[in-house]
Amino acid sequence: MEDTHHTCQWGTGERWGDAPTETGMKRLALSDTDKQARDWFVEATQALGCHTTVDAMGNIFAVRPGLKNDKAPTFVGSHLDTQPTGGRYDGILGVTAGVEMLKVLADNWVETEYPVGVVNWTNEEGARFPMSMVSSGVWAGSIPLETAHSLQEVGSGKATMAEELKRIGYLGETPASYEAMPMAAHFELHIEQGPLLEMSNKKVGVVKGVQAYKWLTVKVKGRDTHTGTTDLKSRADALLTASKMILHSHRVATASSALASTGILNLKPGSTNTVPGEVTFSLDIRAPQNETVVRVTNQIKDDFAKIAAGEDVLHSNQDCTLGLPCSVSITEDFDSPATTFHSSCIDAVRQSAHSVLGSNSKNLVMDMVSGAGHDSVYASKRCPTSMIFVPCREGVSHNPREFCSPEDCAIGAQVLLQSVIRFDRM
Amino acid sequence: MEDTHHTCQWGTGERWGDAPTETGMKRLALSDTDKQARDWFVEATQALGCHTTVDAMGNIFAVRPGLKNDKAPTFVGSHLDTQPTGGRYDGILGVTAGVEMLKVLADNWVETEYPVGVVNWTNEEGARFPMSMVSSGVWAGSIPLETAHSLQEVGSGKATMAEELKRIGYLGETPASYEAMPMAAHFELHIEQGPLLEMSNKKVGVVKGVQAYKWLTVKVKGRDTHTGTTDLKSRADALLTASKMILHSHRVATASSALASTGILNLKPGSTNTVPGEVTFSLDIRAPQNETVVRVTNQIKDDFAKIAAGEDVLHSNQDCTLGLPCSVSITEDFDSPATTFHSSCIDAVRQSAHSVLGSNSKNLVMDMVSGAGHDSVYASKRCPTSMIFVPCREGVSHNPREFCSPEDCAIGAQVLLQSVIRFDRM
Ligand SMILES: NC(=O)NCCC(=O)O
Ligand SMILES: NC(=O)NCCC(=O)O
Repeated sequence: MEDTHHTCQWGTGERWGDAPTETGMKRLALSDTDKQARDWFVEATQALGCHTTVDAMGNIFAVRPGLKNDKAPTFVGSHLDTQPTGGRYDGILGVTAGVEMLKVLADNWVETEYPVGVVNWTNEEGARFPMSMVSSGVWAGSIPLETAHSLQEVGSGKATMAEELKRIGYLGETPASYEAMPMAAHFELHIEQGPLLEMSNKKVGVVKGVQAYKWLTVKVKGRDTHTGTTDLKSRADALLTASKMILHSHRVATASSALASTGILNLKPGSTNTVPGEVTFSLDIRAPQNETVVRVTNQIKDDFAKIAAGEDVLHSNQDCTLGLPCSVSITEDFDSPATTFHSSCIDAVRQSAHSVLGSNSKNLVMDMVSGAGHDSVYASKRCPTSMIFVPCREGVSHNPREFCSPEDCAIGAQVLLQSVIRFDRM
Repeated sequence: MEDTHHTCQWGTGERWGDAPTETGMKRLALSDTDKQARDWFVEATQALGCHTTVDAMGNIFAVRPGLKNDKAPTFVGSHLDTQPTGGRYDGILGVTAGVEMLKVLADNWVETEYPVGVVNWTNEEGARFPMSMVSSGVWAGSIPLETAHSLQEVGSGKATMAEELKRIGYLGETPASYEAMPMAAHFELHIEQGPLLEMSNKKVGVVKGVQAYKWLTVKVKGRDTHTGTTDLKSRADALLTASKMILHSHRVATASSALASTGILNLKPGSTNTVPGEVTFSLDIRAPQNETVVRVTNQIKDDFAKIAAGEDVLHSNQDCTLGLPCSVSITEDFDSPATTFHSSCIDAVRQSAHSVLGSNSKNLVMDMVSGAGHDSVYASKRCPTSMIFVPCREGVSHNPREFCSPEDCAIGAQVLLQSVIRFDRM
């Protein structure tokens, strides 16, 4: 907990309570504060006897030698970047628990069979550079380095990942690749970010996999015109059209028990008395099954084209003057199919959870599937992987009030340590 | 036309055709390019024998002496600021036609009975500082100087009108007031900005008044949460709620033959995988009658509160999972009641139009009411006022493609000149 809150001095966000630690976090990937947190990570792990390597995506691998060093290390990994209005636990807990593992091993003179490591992955959130888990994705060979390097930040800035990696001094020389930096396994401790553990009074979630998701960018083009002189039927109002699309995306998702969300929306030109001629918005579509995500995405694409053309998909046209058609173009920016973790790692986590929680553990541990993506998704493509979830208050995450009690953080860290030791022995 | 296109070198906008003048304009009020256009206006009018005065709102009054100078000048006025994606005619034509009037008077050695003047009003558009016609409003005593000076620019900047007036050197010492700068009358030539003249093959609109409008700011608050782990019913999605409101505002407007428009929308935090916790958007409501604007505004306020609370105002909840309630707060930022111009000025314009257009004029002139606000709205509170409209292509304005043919501009300028001369004689 000390390390967690200590590192939250870099990128402190919105205050929500009076206690010193009752603030959120705003530590966007490759910002100045992310650099400070990275510098801490390098120093802390080196001081604990690790050798650190930075790769071409700024991923930082800290490795502690084992008795034998002819096999790949068993890694613990997560991320130090946060959402613009994020909390103190999402990602951060997984890294500080990894450092805690190194401390416990050092304090107790434990030598593992093979090396163990802790990795801080770059831009897991996809909040600044709009592709989540992008750097573990490059490591896994799933995302081309060039694509990742040329990703541009969201909002009004224009910086690319490559520029920002260079600027903060974390553009490493080691190739970002599972071949240059192989792993025996990857374990990740994370807050659940949803309400299921808390609602069912459980302490540990054994994560068997991750649901599927896609990120789309939708661009609607209409025509800039005067709000006072252009009657409703002579308008091609890109924002009215986008509003219908956003509402409709929730209907389509509802019908398939999927999720559809818009987190970014920008319009042009942005003047009170000009009808917006262009609106661009993000769409995040998720469901446990790949087929559901594909079906919802296809239906949304079809229906958005109809809405833009003026078809009455929402049954709203009779009450609301229909304007001129807009055009719509949709790009698929990111695709993360459903992931199933490795049974050996899942077993290691489950056994560790029961061991840590003791006699009543049957009532305190449950298997689950993650609603959020994590670097473990890409790690799992190249090595046995699993995750450990701990409860977070009211299931709230990506919010300054995100909270996990010190007791629950400690349980998670103990399960993480035991999982690594079990795997190392295995 | 030479002056019009010459001054459009300052703030040239998006290109839409190959010819040198086929670009739009982006000359936001009190920007560096606005300063350049202002400097031109001061030089041009002084060279034509005018005395220029700048007031505390940066309004520039150029006055040409008459035979007698014991009465207030008859003014021609409009504005040199534009929309972010505006054209070369909105406002600009009214000012350059005023300068043209001064040239014609000088070239022909005409001495008017009383002085005549040309005024360039500041920030008529309300595009940069979100209150349209604000500086004629201060001049008329309708808007407090303090309110205007402290208006903050839209978007991410933080500059106020007072700061920007000072920065570009146009914070004058003369009080911004009809008492310090009285007018005998105010005539304004403007493109129609709507399709009515073109559709009915008319050349001149005699403007009898201006419709009513209000500008509101709507702020919706929900809760930032994770898009992947928060089910639809556990969300307080400020953007989904705002989308419903925007759609609904068009329904309410449709039912009353009014207009409702949203030109600005900003959300927080702006990340693909965070449900927006806060959305702020503008609402521009217009109708010919004050009562209609008031009724529509009140209904929108009531219904927005219901939509935020989760009531099924749009009949959309059954198909679209209902989330948690959001809160909504609405401020009324600007109110421009319906305006009726002065019969003497209307007559002067009508007679001049018939005189300029000759034998077939009966088929070429029509009375009309303006859909857009103009500085003439506030001028009319303190002196006899009317306006002259000329057609613009397809009725398009607040768009780079805004266009008025040189022939139509010339007709408008001639009607303007004659209207001033008629009023001066009267
Ligand atoms: N854990 C987390 O918030 N990851 C971001 C990727 C996602 O959007 O699920
Ligand atoms: N003429 C013009 O575009 N004025 C801006 C004020 C308004 O929004 O009507």
